[in-house]
Amino acid sequence: MPLMPVTDSMFLMVETREHPMHVGGLQLFRKPEGAGEDYLRDLRRSLLESDNMRSVFRMRPSRPVNTVGHVRWSRDTDLELDYHFRHSALPQPGRIRELLELTSRWHSTLLDRHRPLWETHLIEGLRDGRFAVYSKIHHALMDGVSALRHLQGTLSDDPADLDCPPPWGSREKPATNRNGRASTSPFALVGKTFEQVAGIAPAAAKVAREAFREHRLTLPMQAPKTMLNVPIGGARRFAAQSWPLDRVREVATAAGVSRNDVVLAMCSGALRDYLIEQSALPDAPLVAMVPVSLRRRDSGDATGNNIGALLCNLATDLTDPAARLAAISESMSNGKKLFSQLSPLQTLLLSGINVAQLGASPIPGFVGNTRPPFNLVISNVPGPRKQMYWNGAALDGIYPASVLLDGQALNITLTSNGDNLDFGVTGCRRSVPHLQRILTHLDTALAELEFATRV
Amino acid sequence: MPLMPVTDSMFLMVETREHPMHVGGLQLFRKPEGAGEDYLRDLRRSLLESDNMRSVFRMRPSRPVNTVGHVRWSRDTDLELDYHFRHSALPQPGRIRELLELTSRWHSTLLDRHRPLWETHLIEGLRDGRFAVYSKIHHALMDGVSALRHLQGTLSDDPADLDCPPPWGSREKPATNRNGRASTSPFALVGKTFEQVAGIAPAAAKVAREAFREHRLTLPMQAPKTMLNVPIGGARRFAAQSWPLDRVREVATAAGVSRNDVVLAMCSGALRDYLIEQSALPDAPLVAMVPVSLRRRDSGDATGNNIGALLCNLATDLTDPAARLAAISESMSNGKKLFSQLSPLQTLLLSGINVAQLGASPIPGFVGNTRPPFNLVISNVPGPRKQMYWNGAALDGIYPASVLLDGQALNITLTSNGDNLDFGVTGCRRSVPHLQRILTHLDTALAELEFATRV
Repeated sequence: MPLMPVTDSMFLMVETREHPMHVGGLQLFRKPEGAGEDYLRDLRRSLLESDNMRSVFRMRPSRPVNTVGHVRWSRDTDLELDYHFRHSALPQPGRIRELLELTSRWHSTLLDRHRPLWETHLIEGLRDGRFAVYSKIHHALMDGVSALRHLQGTLSDDPADLDCPPPWGSREKPATNRNGRASTSPFALVGKTFEQVAGIAPAAAKVAREAFREHRLTLPMQAPKTMLNVPIGGARRFAAQSWPLDRVREVATAAGVSRNDVVLAMCSGALRDYLIEQSALPDAPLVAMVPVSLRRRDSGDATGNNIGALLCNLATDLTDPAARLAAISESMSNGKKLFSQLSPLQTLLLSGINVAQLGASPIPGFVGNTRPPFNLVISNVPGPRKQMYWNGAALDGIYPASVLLDGQALNITLTSNGDNLDFGVTGCRRSVPHLQRILTHLDTALAELEFATRV
Repeated sequence: MPLMPVTDSMFLMVETREHPMHVGGLQLFRKPEGAGEDYLRDLRRSLLESDNMRSVFRMRPSRPVNTVGHVRWSRDTDLELDYHFRHSALPQPGRIRELLELTSRWHSTLLDRHRPLWETHLIEGLRDGRFAVYSKIHHALMDGVSALRHLQGTLSDDPADLDCPPPWGSREKPATNRNGRASTSPFALVGKTFEQVAGIAPAAAKVAREAFREHRLTLPMQAPKTMLNVPIGGARRFAAQSWPLDRVREVATAAGVSRNDVVLAMCSGALRDYLIEQSALPDAPLVAMVPVSLRRRDSGDATGNNIGALLCNLATDLTDPAARLAAISESMSNGKKLFSQLSPLQTLLLSGINVAQLGASPIPGFVGNTRPPFNLVISNVPGPRKQMYWNGAALDGIYPASVLLDGQALNITLTSNGDNLDFGVTGCRRSVPHLQRILTHLDTALAELEFATRV
């Protein structure tokens, strides 16, 4: 039974009922043509009968309670699939609104640590005839990027491919080790991450924490204290919507910036409008933490946590959308430069700051006494470029639901999906009232950017 | 803001993710004749619009986290009814089985301590056209008996009475104090319990704990260690079924015992069959803890925790159903005698043992090192004698879902309801496999008792 790296086990250690540490994904599907009344019943049965399960979905902490120090994984030899895979239905009238309300509830409850740390819901009852799948998995097993990549890995770009694995399954053959033998360890994937990080993580986390406490590692900017940077409760609200990638692409081309800059400017405009509406816009510009993958593109490894971070000036103090976009683009370029100048160890340290934040956040008084290093996390995760299918059902959307922390009551995560950008907005239900209005403001912000950059 | 009595706040202090400390109730209703398609939508809207809310449903702990010592209540001035009152639906095919599966999930999740400690679900999608209501409330606010009485208090025996309060409402006018003035305190009801118990509870709990530790208070019997007396996980399974009161009454009359004795013999027979099936029947007879209300019948007070207890020899070592019934009846008579000889303080102390158990159970190793004082709780709560209605909808069943503790993986609670006895069986999902079979065994046990006592 391998030890978890500290960067992973920390997600178990700091979890409390106010701080669930799981990530989620909501997928919307259109039924295949000719699907009959029994389609979902048959789908559910075939999923329950499948024995395709990725090894991480069998892993549970060997000690369920919070403990200091290392935690080991155990393999659950008696996994009750019926517990993890749940059949659910929307109440009338079965709109997206009812789907988001249910997703909000599910994203608020803690995973059972006596079992492998995941749940998947198959959801019927959408009045437009579509169906949905909500999956959640603990951050100690996968970060949000890994979880999205995992879900994407269960899909196919071929509508005739009826061999797609279940949301907890894998397309991969059993892993082979360097000698070409099939690995029989259920921890093969995690073991790899472990080897990559184990030597460095405990020391790095310690150094990062010390550096952060003594301010030796100077942060590039300081964020104002806002209504988003307060202690949070355990309940969540989740909102989701898609925008055409083309609209973002055209603004990026016209302004000569990256697509991610445009996305950040959409968020900036939406946050500015939302905070004005709440009479809570600070004078100083908001700062977003923008995660960057530390994973090598060719590594093919989708488990474990490997995230670096940039801090981005969201320029919410500027009234002009074009000026905001320019300021954001400049901030991201500076951030990128800073990032590329760092050694791998320094990069890990910078990402370690956020881990140190995690470790420090449940300490009473921490939120109140320091200015936040950033106001919220905005994460843009690359997704499939084509229309994807799952056993013939077309994927209409895949919306990420994220972890919140004390002092970080809002998160925006999006992913590209074929011709769309799918946004998932996760908020503390108490601290962020009328969360769904952020969707409207995102729409307005994009329209303003289009207007400002029109040729 | 009143202090909670220790006997109440203890339920907050010992709560962990493996030990949710709420009680629940599942109600099954038939729609009124002539109810249209919009019946549930209209019902939901009218409930959301009602401003009838009992004061305990506005109370939350002033400090949400676990703390040692006294806890105060706060009044939630900004209650989000939409959060507490939830609209839910059953997946196809909408049988009782799907309803129990959903109820099992809801009964497994922790209540949000940043809010008043309750949730109510209105459930549509039963294929027989009925609808259901599942309510849960924290044990610190109401014990199971109080919660059932509260729910019963929202019903009417008149199908034409369309003035029934919501499940969180009250029929009572605002309380008046001794001077005839309306009490304006939102804590009026809780304050009463507080006054009754506050003076005695802290000292009593301390004495009870010491007495228990030093075995000065000798328990009347010793229970064997069984598969039901193990550490538990956080997930629950809930099963429910009704039996005609007449069948129990006829056995009681034929055998010259009380109806509660027959109910305990039903449970005994079911447990014996279940444990034989699991190859886990101990040689020594199982011991049930049978709660007894300490509340005076005329007090009309339905908040706070006021439970005493009897220990009952379930005689699961006897093969003959009639002999088991006789042994159970004798054990209960002895218990009653013991109980009536105790002073009020001693009675509270005896009930305090169970509270002390609660306090001790989360300590690691406690479950393994001592024999359990009893094997399970079997609770029989008096309910309405007539067919009841809720705004014209006939109540078909009201099934109690209970709290489990480390070392107590199963609970059977039943209530009388018109012509029926409604049984709710709550179990740890991991420790008690095939929980639903206990329903079949209960049915068999009743038939055996009828056969054994036939004239």
